[in-house]
Amino acid sequence: MFKLVAEQENARTGILKTAHGKIETPFFMPVATKGAVKLVSNSELEEAGTKCIICNAYLLSISPGTKIVKKAGGIHKFIGWNKGIFTDSGGFQTLSEKFLIKADEKGVTFKNPFDKSTSFLSPEKAVEIQNLLESDVAMCLDDVPLHGSTLTRIKESAERTTRWAERCKNAHKNKKQLLFGICQGGLNEKLRQKSSKEIAKIEFDGNAIGGLCIGETNSERNKMVKVSNSQFQKDKPRYLMGVGSPKDILECISHGVDIFDSCFPARIARHRTAMTSKGNINILNARFAKDFKPLDKKCECFTCQNHSRAFIRHLAKTKEENSLRLLSIHNISFVQKIAKEAKLAIKENRFDKMVKDFKRNKQKVF
Amino acid sequence: MFKLVAEQENARTGILKTAHGKIETPFFMPVATKGAVKLVSNSELEEAGTKCIICNAYLLSISPGTKIVKKAGGIHKFIGWNKGIFTDSGGFQTLSEKFLIKADEKGVTFKNPFDKSTSFLSPEKAVEIQNLLESDVAMCLDDVPLHGSTLTRIKESAERTTRWAERCKNAHKNKKQLLFGICQGGLNEKLRQKSSKEIAKIEFDGNAIGGLCIGETNSERNKMVKVSNSQFQKDKPRYLMGVGSPKDILECISHGVDIFDSCFPARIARHRTAMTSKGNINILNARFAKDFKPLDKKCECFTCQNHSRAFIRHLAKTKEENSLRLLSIHNISFVQKIAKEAKLAIKENRFDKMVKDFKRNKQKVF
Repeated sequence: MFKLVAEQENARTGILKTAHGKIETPFFMPVATKGAVKLVSNSELEEAGTKCIICNAYLLSISPGTKIVKKAGGIHKFIGWNKGIFTDSGGFQTLSEKFLIKADEKGVTFKNPFDKSTSFLSPEKAVEIQNLLESDVAMCLDDVPLHGSTLTRIKESAERTTRWAERCKNAHKNKKQLLFGICQGGLNEKLRQKSSKEIAKIEFDGNAIGGLCIGETNSERNKMVKVSNSQFQKDKPRYLMGVGSPKDILECISHGVDIFDSCFPARIARHRTAMTSKGNINILNARFAKDFKPLDKKCECFTCQNHSRAFIRHLAKTKEENSLRLLSIHNISFVQKIAKEAKLAIKENRFDKMVKDFKRNKQKVF
Repeated sequence: MFKLVAEQENARTGILKTAHGKIETPFFMPVATKGAVKLVSNSELEEAGTKCIICNAYLLSISPGTKIVKKAGGIHKFIGWNKGIFTDSGGFQTLSEKFLIKADEKGVTFKNPFDKSTSFLSPEKAVEIQNLLESDVAMCLDDVPLHGSTLTRIKESAERTTRWAERCKNAHKNKKQLLFGICQGGLNEKLRQKSSKEIAKIEFDGNAIGGLCIGETNSERNKMVKVSNSQFQKDKPRYLMGVGSPKDILECISHGVDIFDSCFPARIARHRTAMTSKGNINILNARFAKDFKPLDKKCECFTCQNHSRAFIRHLAKTKEENSLRLLSIHNISFVQKIAKEAKLAIKENRFDKMVKDFKRNKQKVF
């Protein structure tokens, strides 16, 4: 199911086998919450080098509902994407006041954001939904504490997450689908370590690090990543949820992470920001008005092959949504290229140099 | 410059030679006001069968300005589109309260919609802008009367449009660029006839019918189209401005029109409406929730080849903009297919049958 191919210190490259093909790690998943990445077509995601995306099972279970997805022949057929699909359980939505009503030992009560009705999501239900959707990788329902929670709350959430993880494992019935566990523990080293150890012990197909990228510093995050990965099995894939900037991805690869997801590249694109090898640029800046170069001169994406900074700036300035589309395509391609280069660099035993070179280029911290 | 290839009654097919290649008529131009069709990439326009688009010279002259377009190497290079480009002069904006301050014999005073400053557009200035942009076909500045104007106003606008057309012709300096005249005359047969005759007499590279599709009935429009075409040279291309529904295009081809433009296919897409060979459908309709067929079963566009009605409805229902994108790609492809089929049907002397078949399918009037 997962095979390590090469390692350089803690960084690794491997192959994850799913029902929709093999995916080389490390890889980055753009977020297609409701089955589509905002403003970008599936064919454009593929051209950008995307091998796997992540959808939100809970939101899909509300609309269009699992029955319709099932009738379409599963999530791949429904959304028209024949490569890897992870589904998130809905645990992350517990952080949102828009969704959460209450979380207790039984599960989570959500507001339906579409019609204001309520729905109840237990660990078993979260797994059942994902079984029905037929994603390649299902995620356990976890109890995510808010950033800055008390130690009592972090402890409660970590312990509950373990109990929920066991219930998820017992409820999982789709043999073609992999199931990943998720650890919690906030920024507390001991709780994070305990949670990671407990999750590893349940023996999932892969282990994920949850509850990060919600307000902590990079060094706090890196510390927790190291703690978790020290507890996770070496021969299982490690997934850090919510990370998506080139610098963060490279740092976390160096701490042993294999899989990433984030709406970050597309979200900053919608804020008119392009990633480049010399740092981020805001395309509205006046200095791009007569700049006929591509967003990044080494980039081979559709946007950079066809359009200049001046044109994209013109579209952004006159509020044309195509500017956000072109920036989204570029940023996703840019991150995919970083992940691809990291993979090669690890195989060729020069990943540490790649990271140093990248940082030397004064890439801004996103 | 224009060569008739085949005729069936008044319908005709021909070839328009431009600085960016030959374009077979009849053809339809999607509207790329500021240099990009809303939500659709140039490569997607090409895949949809688009050979020519129309941009708005006046708006481009305000932002980014002719200097920047010139520096980019002309409008084709600036926007990344290597096929035909028409530019509209800005005359149509006189219908909009958002833009118009005042129109008199000298020209039009506009509000700049971006920064609230004012700008003055004379016939000479409108042509100069288009010369600088280097579009393939420039349009004269016309004085467009509002729908329902008094006869006095319609007469004034038609006479002024002729005087402006002469000034445009005199001001036109770009030898690689074609210049089309535009007739006015409201819905008054005599004034429309007189205006068309006067415009034809100035001997432009092509003749356009302006001031229609702004509130009149289809039969009123058809009458004016017939009147204008009876005055225009037979061996010059005829362009009806603002028409873009399949039924209207077919009707007007049968009255001898060669060129069309409209934002209609993309605009109704943004209102969640798809064109099909059996009439328009609103994708939000509940009956499409479990409909896994493509929008139109005979359509070969990207959307129909990859996505179902049920999926597009799901995206539309959950307010994902990709639904509008997928519908835009489909509708533009659908109209391009109609124009392509019309071309073939005229060559094969079966255009009248094509129109009858189309109407028999109970295509709704859009």
